[in-house]
Amino acid sequence: MEYLNDIVATVRRDMEAHLGRGKVADYIPALARIDPKNFAIAVATCNGQTAEAGGAHLPFSIQSISKVFTLTLALNKLGATLWERVGREPSGSRFNSIVQLEAEKGIPRNPLINAGAVVVTDTLLDGGEAGATILEILNFMRRLADDAAIVIDEEVAQSEAQTGFRNASLANFLRAFGNLKGPVNEVLKVYFNQCAIRMNCRQLARAGLFLANGGQDPLHHARVTTPFRTRRINAVMMTCGHYDASGDFACRVGLPGKSGVGGGILAIAPRKASVCVWSPGLNAQGNSLVGAMALERLASLTGWSVF
Amino acid sequence: MEYLNDIVATVRRDMEAHLGRGKVADYIPALARIDPKNFAIAVATCNGQTAEAGGAHLPFSIQSISKVFTLTLALNKLGATLWERVGREPSGSRFNSIVQLEAEKGIPRNPLINAGAVVVTDTLLDGGEAGATILEILNFMRRLADDAAIVIDEEVAQSEAQTGFRNASLANFLRAFGNLKGPVNEVLKVYFNQCAIRMNCRQLARAGLFLANGGQDPLHHARVTTPFRTRRINAVMMTCGHYDASGDFACRVGLPGKSGVGGGILAIAPRKASVCVWSPGLNAQGNSLVGAMALERLASLTGWSVF
Amino acid sequence: MEYLNDIVATVRRDMEAHLGRGKVADYIPALARIDPKNFAIAVATCNGQTAEAGGAHLPFSIQSISKVFTLTLALNKLGATLWERVGREPSGSRFNSIVQLEAEKGIPRNPLINAGAVVVTDTLLDGGEAGATILEILNFMRRLADDAAIVIDEEVAQSEAQTGFRNASLANFLRAFGNLKGPVNEVLKVYFNQCAIRMNCRQLARAGLFLANGGQDPLHHARVTTPFRTRRINAVMMTCGHYDASGDFACRVGLPGKSGVGGGILAIAPRKASVCVWSPGLNAQGNSLVGAMALERLASLTGWSVF
Amino acid sequence: MEYLNDIVATVRRDMEAHLGRGKVADYIPALARIDPKNFAIAVATCNGQTAEAGGAHLPFSIQSISKVFTLTLALNKLGATLWERVGREPSGSRFNSIVQLEAEKGIPRNPLINAGAVVVTDTLLDGGEAGATILEILNFMRRLADDAAIVIDEEVAQSEAQTGFRNASLANFLRAFGNLKGPVNEVLKVYFNQCAIRMNCRQLARAGLFLANGGQDPLHHARVTTPFRTRRINAVMMTCGHYDASGDFACRVGLPGKSGVGGGILAIAPRKASVCVWSPGLNAQGNSLVGAMALERLASLTGWSVF
Repeated sequence: MEYLNDIVATVRRDMEAHLGRGKVADYIPALARIDPKNFAIAVATCNGQTAEAGGAHLPFSIQSISKVFTLTLALNKLGATLWERVGREPSGSRFNSIVQLEAEKGIPRNPLINAGAVVVTDTLLDGGEAGATILEILNFMRRLADDAAIVIDEEVAQSEAQTGFRNASLANFLRAFGNLKGPVNEVLKVYFNQCAIRMNCRQLARAGLFLANGGQDPLHHARVTTPFRTRRINAVMMTCGHYDASGDFACRVGLPGKSGVGGGILAIAPRKASVCVWSPGLNAQGNSLVGAMALERLASLTGWSVF
Repeated sequence: MEYLNDIVATVRRDMEAHLGRGKVADYIPALARIDPKNFAIAVATCNGQTAEAGGAHLPFSIQSISKVFTLTLALNKLGATLWERVGREPSGSRFNSIVQLEAEKGIPRNPLINAGAVVVTDTLLDGGEAGATILEILNFMRRLADDAAIVIDEEVAQSEAQTGFRNASLANFLRAFGNLKGPVNEVLKVYFNQCAIRMNCRQLARAGLFLANGGQDPLHHARVTTPFRTRRINAVMMTCGHYDASGDFACRVGLPGKSGVGGGILAIAPRKASVCVWSPGLNAQGNSLVGAMALERLASLTGWSVF
Repeated sequence: MEYLNDIVATVRRDMEAHLGRGKVADYIPALARIDPKNFAIAVATCNGQTAEAGGAHLPFSIQSISKVFTLTLALNKLGATLWERVGREPSGSRFNSIVQLEAEKGIPRNPLINAGAVVVTDTLLDGGEAGATILEILNFMRRLADDAAIVIDEEVAQSEAQTGFRNASLANFLRAFGNLKGPVNEVLKVYFNQCAIRMNCRQLARAGLFLANGGQDPLHHARVTTPFRTRRINAVMMTCGHYDASGDFACRVGLPGKSGVGGGILAIAPRKASVCVWSPGLNAQGNSLVGAMALERLASLTGWSVF
Repeated sequence: MEYLNDIVATVRRDMEAHLGRGKVADYIPALARIDPKNFAIAVATCNGQTAEAGGAHLPFSIQSISKVFTLTLALNKLGATLWERVGREPSGSRFNSIVQLEAEKGIPRNPLINAGAVVVTDTLLDGGEAGATILEILNFMRRLADDAAIVIDEEVAQSEAQTGFRNASLANFLRAFGNLKGPVNEVLKVYFNQCAIRMNCRQLARAGLFLANGGQDPLHHARVTTPFRTRRINAVMMTCGHYDASGDFACRVGLPGKSGVGGGILAIAPRKASVCVWSPGLNAQGNSLVGAMALERLASLTGWSVF
C-alpha cells in the first residue's frame, strides 16, 4: 500500500509540468468552464487497497465512460444477442462519425462509439420509459461505487439535449435502419442523462473494480457480471475505448480503458486494480491528454501492462 | 507439462468436428492445393515446456505472420521514428484496402496490414539490395526458431510476384506519397519472399517466444528486442493482428495474435507462452477459421486471456 | 402540332411493352398502392403547343421534382450566396447518402440531393413559420402551372413525417454543422409538404416551361427568374438531377431533368419545350424506369438533345 | 466572322487582368517551366470560320484532353460494350482518386478520370504492342487536326513514366480486379504517350470539330463517329470533363468540355463550334483557372450555352 501511494504521488508529480495542456470540451457551457489544470488519480486494487492523488474527490461529468457500464447492463440483459445489433470492431474513425454506419447498414461498429452506445441504451429502454431507465443506470453506478450520493448534472443533461444535433442525427439514422426500437427522443433522453452523471475519480475507480476481478465486486463479493462477459468488456475497451486513438492507448498504456469528453479515463488492470484519472484538457482525438500520460506513467511504474 | 499436453490434446479433439470448414486461399496454386482438413497446434512456454498436437511438424506458408517479425527488426533499427511512416491504429478495413491510404496521405494505419508491412519492409531494405534483406529476414527467423533448416518456398514467392497486382498498386501508391524510398520492384521482391517463408507450428511457436518474455529468448537468454518494444508489438497484434476481425479475436481469445492467409495464427500469452495454430480454411475476413476457434478453446482451458 | 402529337403517341406506344417494370416506392402506403402500369407524358412548347398521352391528367406525388422549384425560389431570394451553403457538384452517391456530408463538413454536394434540398428549404423558411413557407411554395407551383387547384396530399405529408428518419438524420446533421438555421422540425415539415404536392404531367410540364424559355413564362410573359439563373438551374439538373444515375440520363436523354420517387420526371429542352413523364416503377437508383426510357425515345424522335 | 473575331478579342482582353493566376503543374520539369502568363484561344465553327487570340500557335501538352479522343476511338471499336468496363457517372472526386475504384470493384466511374482513361487505353492496346497503339492515337489526332506535324513530347512522356507512381497504382489496381487485360507497363506506356502529345489551340479546336457536328468533320465531310456516340461523348464531357469541378463548369460555361493539366480546355458548342483555350495556371481542382474564365466569358458573349 505504501508502494502504491508512492507510485501515485510520483505520477502526479510527473504530470505537474503538463497540467493545462489540451483543450477543454467547449460544446456546452458546463464543460467549457472547467479549469484545464485539474488533475486527479485514484487506484482501487482487488485486495482492497486504495491510493489517490490530486482532486480525487472532485466530481466531473463521466460522459462516455458511462458506455462501459451500460454495456455491462445490456450484456447482462441480452447476452450474446446484443452483438446482432452492435459490432465489436474498432471503427478507425471519430467517436461521432456517421460514415461507417451508412456503409454497414445501421449496425454500429462497437458499443463505445456514440452510435453503438445509443443502440445499447435503446436495449435498456426496451419499450419502457426514459425516467425509469435513467434511474436504473444511476442506481447501478451508485451500487458499484458504493455511494448513494451520486447524481446526474441536470444542467449538463439539458445542454446536451439542446446541442446534441449530431447524436440526434445518429439516432434518427439508426432508426431509419430499424436498429433503434424506442422513440428517438426517449432514447436520446436516457443517453444524455447517462453521460451527465457526475462522479469523482475515487467513485469511478471503485465502480470499475468488478472488471478487474472477473465480474465480481472483490469487496462486497457481489457478482456484477460473468467472467466471460468481463473479458469481452475489457477486450472491447482495449480495442475501441479511445475511438481512433485506441491503438495508441494500447501501445502506450497497455490496459483496457475508456475515456470521456469530460476528461476522465477509466482503466482496468485485470486481476489487479481499477484506475481512474481525470484531467479536462483533451487531445485531437477527444481523449484526456494528461490523463493518458498519467496512465502511461502508472503502467510503467507498476508493470501492470497486460502485454 | 502433462497438464499442457492434456489441454492441447483436448483442443485438437474439440476441433475435429470443424476441420475442413472455411475456404482455403486460392489466389495462387501453391496455396490452393493445401488440404483444408489440416490442423496443428504447438505451444512453447517461457519455462521451456512444449506441447503439440496435429501436424505440428508440417511446414506451411507463414504469409502475414512474417509482418510481426519484420516489425521487430524495423523497431530495432529505427526505434520510435518508425511511427512517422506507419501508424498503430486498427484500420477497420480489409488487409489490402487502399481507401484509408488515400485519406491519410500515404501513411498506412498500422504495420500489420499489407500497406504498412510494405513500408516496414522498405525500412529494412533501406537502399540496399533485395537479396541481402531477404537473407536478413530469413536468418532472423532461423535464429529465433533455433532451426537453420527454414527456407523460402520459391514457387510461392514467384506466384505472389506474378499475381500481386494489388500489392503492386499499394506499393506504387505509397511511392506516390513519398512513403516508399526503395524501388517498387525491389521492395515487393523482399515482401513477397518474406511472406513465402515456410515454417511449421513448432518453429513458429518457438520463434515467437521472445514476445511472451519481454523481448528476451527465455531459453538461449539472447535479447531480441527491449521490453518496451515488446509491449508495443503485442499491443499492435492485439488491436490490428486480424484486420477487420481484430476486435472479435480480442473478445474471443483475449491474446495478441497475428494471422496469415496460409492458415497460421501466432498468439502470445505474455509472461506465459507462445502458441501457433494452423488450419488452412479461412473465414470471410481472411483469418484461419478453425485456428481462431482452437485458440479460443485453448485460452478458455488455460485461463491465459490477458483480460 | 400534329407532328408533336404523333411523336408523343409513338413514345407511348413504344412504352406499352415496358409498363409495370421497375419497383414502386413502398416506404409509405400512399405511394405503395399506386398501380405500376400507369404511364403519362405531357409536352408544352415555348410557342404554346401542347401534346400529351396516357393519363396526363392523373395527379401523382411530385416528390423530389419540387426541389427544382424551391431552388428557383431560393436563387431568387439569395442569389449567388446560396452556393455558400450548398454546392453544385454531382455527388456520385445515393439521394439520401450522409457520407459526403461528413467529409465536406455539412455543405451538401448539390441542391437536388435530399440534404441539399433541406438546406434550400431552410433558406425559404428563413426564421419564419412552416405554414407560410408551405403556402409560398404551393402558390408558386399554382402560379407556374396556371392552375389554382393544385393541393398537397396530406396523407403523404404525414406519412413522410412519420417515417422520415433518414431525412431527420440529415437535417440534424446539417444543424450540427451550423448549416441549418431553422428548427429541425419546422424545416422538415416544409420539406415533407413540398414533396407531397400532387400534380399531373400536364401541370408539371406547364410549370417547368419557364426553364425552357430563359426564365420567362412564354405564355403569360411573366419573368420567373433571370436567364443567368435559368442556365444554372438547368445545368444543375443535367449534372445532378438523377442522383448517381445523372451521367446515364445525360448520355441517354441529353436533357436537363429531375426525377421524383413518385415516378415523375421533368425534363427541359432549352429554347424548345418542357416535358413531364410519369410511370411509378423505379430503377435501382430510384428514378422512373419507363419514364427515362420514354424521354430517351422522345429525345431521339425530336432531336431535342442538347448534345 | 468579324463578329467572332471581336468576341475572341474581347475575351482575351478581359482575361488580361487574370493572367498568371493559378498554379502551373509542377510534378514534372517540362510542365513546371511553362510561363503561367500564357494565354490562347481558338474557335473553329461548323461552317468553316475560325477566330483566335493570344498564342494560338503555341504548342502545349494536351494531357487529359487526349482522353476525349481515345474514348472516341474505343467507342468506335467496342460500341456500347465499352460501358461494361467503365461507367459514365461523375465521380465526385479527384482525377486520380482510387477510393471509388475499390468500392466499385475495379470499374472506373467514367472514361475521363485517370483510371477510366487507362481502361480505355487498354481496349485500344487490345493485346497489341504499345508502339503501334501510340501511333494509332497520334495519327488520329493528326487526321482530325488536319496537320501531320503533330508530335509527342518525348521528355514529357519519359517524365510521366518516371514519376507516374499514382497511375501505376491505379493500373495495378485495375489489373487486380481483372479490368486491365494488357501488361501494366505496356498500357501505361501508351497512356503516358497519349498525354504527352503536343498541340496548339488552333489544332485542338480543329480536331474537336466533329463533336460539334454530329460526329462528322464538317470541312472534309469524313465521318469520325456516329451522331449517337457523339451525343454520348459530349454528355460525358459535360458531366465528367472537369473532375470534381464538372458541375461548376456546367453552371458557369454550359458547354461540354475537357481540361488537361497542361492548362488546355477543349469545349464543344454542339451544332456551332469547337473551342480550345490554354492558360497553364490551374485551380485547386487541377483545371485551367483563366481558361475556364475565358470560356465562361465566351459562352456569355456568344450565347452558346446549351442551357
